Formats: sequence, C-alpha cells, structure tokens
Amino acid sequence: MRKVFQADLQQIGEELIEMSRLVAIAMDRAWDSLANADVDLAQEVIAADAKIDFLQNQLDERAIDTLALQGPVASDLRMIVGSLRMSASLERMGDLARHLAQLTRLRFPNHAIPERISETFAQMAEVDIQIAKEVGRLLDTRDLAIARAIIELNHKLDGLHASVFTVIADESWDATAPTTVDVSLTSRYLERFGDHGVSVARKVTYLVTGEWDPAEF
Amino acid sequence: MRKVFQADLQQIGEELIEMSRLVAIAMDRAWDSLANADVDLAQEVIAADAKIDFLQNQLDERAIDTLALQGPVASDLRMIVGSLRMSASLERMGDLARHLAQLTRLRFPNHAIPERISETFAQMAEVDIQIAKEVGRLLDTRDLAIARAIIELNHKLDGLHASVFTVIADESWDATAPTTVDVSLTSRYLERFGDHGVSVARKVTYLVTGEWDPAEF
Repeated sequence: MRKVFQADLQQIGEELIEMSRLVAIAMDRAWDSLANADVDLAQEVIAADAKIDFLQNQLDERAIDTLALQGPVASDLRMIVGSLRMSASLERMGDLARHLAQLTRLRFPNHAIPERISETFAQMAEVDIQIAKEVGRLLDTRDLAIARAIIELNHKLDGLHASVFTVIADESWDATAPTTVDVSLTSRYLERFGDHGVSVARKVTYLVTGEWDPAEF
Repeated sequence: MRKVFQADLQQIGEELIEMSRLVAIAMDRAWDSLANADVDLAQEVIAADAKIDFLQNQLDERAIDTLALQGPVASDLRMIVGSLRMSASLERMGDLARHLAQLTRLRFPNHAIPERISETFAQMAEVDIQIAKEVGRLLDTRDLAIARAIIELNHKLDGLHASVFTVIADESWDATAPTTVDVSLTSRYLERFGDHGVSVARKVTYLVTGEWDPAEF
C-alpha cells in the first residue's frame, strides 16, 4: 500500500514539474508572439494552453483518487492538498501567457506594444520564464534557497511593473488610449504570472518546514 | 462518526456562505469608496479583507482535518476538495474588491474614475454584488437554476467590460494616460470578480450533478 502511495506522490510531483516546464515555454513563446506580432506563434500558444489545462485535470483526478484510496494523513495529506493548490497556480500561469498571445492576435497585423516599453516587458517576460523554471527546480529538489530566489525574482518583477506606470505617467507618453490599455493589461499579466510562482514557492516552503512565515513573503 | 462528519460538512458550507456574504459587502463598499473618493471607507475595506483571508484559512484547516479524521470517499471527498477550490475563488473575490479600495487610496483626494465611465462601473459593481449574493444562495440551496443565473449575470458583466474599451477607443476619450490605466485595471478587476463567481457556480453544479459540461460555461 505504502509503495503505491509513494508512486502516486511521485507521479503528482512529476506532473507539477511538467506543468512548470510547459508554462515557462508558454511565456517564452507568448512574449515572442507579442514582441514580433507573430500571429501563428500566438495561435500555437493558445492551442498549447489546452494541454496545460488537461494536465491540471489529470493531476487533480489523481490527487483525489489518492485521497480516496490511500486515506493519507499528516504531512502526506498536506502534500496532496498542497498539490491541488499548486496545480491551480500553474494552470493560471498558463492562462496569463495565453492572454498575451490573445492580445497578439487581437491587434494583428499591428504590434500591440510600443517600442519604448518593449524592452521593459522583455525583461519582465525573462524574469517570468526564470520564475517558472525555478519553480520546476524547487519542486524537483525542495531546496528552499530556490524558494527565496523566486521571491527575489518577484520583487524585481514588481519593480519593473511599477516602472511601466512611471513611463505611462510621464508627459512624453504619447500612445493612443487603446495602446495604453494594452500596455496596462500586459504589465498586469506579466506581474501576476510571478505572483503565482511565489504562491507555489510559499506552498513548497510550508510543506517542507511545516511553518508559515508571512513576513518572508 | 458519520454525525461528526455531517457537522463538519455543514460547518464548511456555512463558512463558504459567510465568505460570499463578506465579499458581496466588500465589493459594495469598495465601489462606493471609489465612486466617492472616500478614503476612510477604502481603509475599512482593506482592513476587512483580512477577515476574509482568515475565514479561508480556517475553512481550509477544517477541510484538511476532516480529510484526515474522517477519510471521506466518493461524493463526500469531492465536496471537501471542492470546498478548498471554492474558498480560494471567494478569497480572490475579496482581493479584487480590496484592489479597488487600494486604488481609491492611491488617488485620494482625487477621483480615480472619470464621470463618463462611472455609470458603467456602477452597473458592473452592481452585477458583481448580485453574483456574490447569488453564490451564497446557490451554496445554501444547491438550486442549479441559480448557477445558470450566475452565468447569465457574468455574460452581462463581460458585455459591460467590453463596452468600457469601446468608450476608451473612441476619439472623444480625452482622459490622461494614468486615468486610462486606472480605468483599464478597474474594469479588469470588476470583470474578474464575476469569473470567480462562475468558478464557484461550476463547482457546485459539478458536485450536484457529477457532470461537467464545458459548453455550459
């Protein structure tokens, strides 16, 4: 029985790692599609999001079956329940990448993002991809130094997000109102992606230490 | 044992209903604070959000204890796991109301929202409040007609959200870029609030019927 249970846990862990791998790819390609007004790539990102949703459903079903069949308690139980939370965060990261791709498609053949803000978003996307990759490494190794690194990366992301609004507030900002909308929402999506990565990092930290330190986050 | 379990389930159900009541109040007051640039009211909304977060934690702990102590299976198990998802959706609705209150505070003593868009947002907030109230009624009665009504309300919300961007795209839109940002994000928050209500409605529908009909949502 115990052996089956360990195999289930391992499988759930691998599915979470796979989800983090897919959302890193999704963000990478979603930003590329937006930066280059590449509608074909955008379509691919949108289609690929269904795979992430499917993985989440599969993982959730497996977690529920494990709860029903193995009746885990204590830390094993928290691990399974935690995996449901983590899969929801990762699924949401996939949605946010999809939103960027949808914006590419909406504005095609135009570029949605003006050049002067594009470099900041490229940096934000780069940090997002790093966060998704670090989440995968954290899930794999449970090395809490990685959780702290994710939180640091997210602070960097928040700083870049704030800088976008400083640029928009500057009197030299001359984009049209719809472009200002696109820039606001893009910045919000890129920023939220990191928050969900932090949620996973918090959850892993809690599962490893059994302690919840709100001050740390 | 069975009796204890039923009492646990009932308690979890009541906490979800209480959360939906609190998020309806939060949205009501958050919109009031934004419409009237009422920073004191905004502070109250921000402070009250901690209560919603606390309720979520309490509910989640109770759910996990129930899983550990009662080892529920089949539909009881799905109900408990579903309650974890629903509490997360409701908690997020509280966060979105808080974001509106934080915007009130950020722009005080100015009004963040220009008058010409205020009526649309008032309608969106009204629909959000209705959705939160209907979610409470749905959780209480499990009457699936209410779930369908929530989905209808959310369609109305999506229409209002889209109309905001039509107004912004019109050449007569002469607000400053930061105001355009505030309007975009406010519309997004109001729209997302409804999505989370729909998530709860979907979950209840699934728990009642055992069937998942994506076409319906």
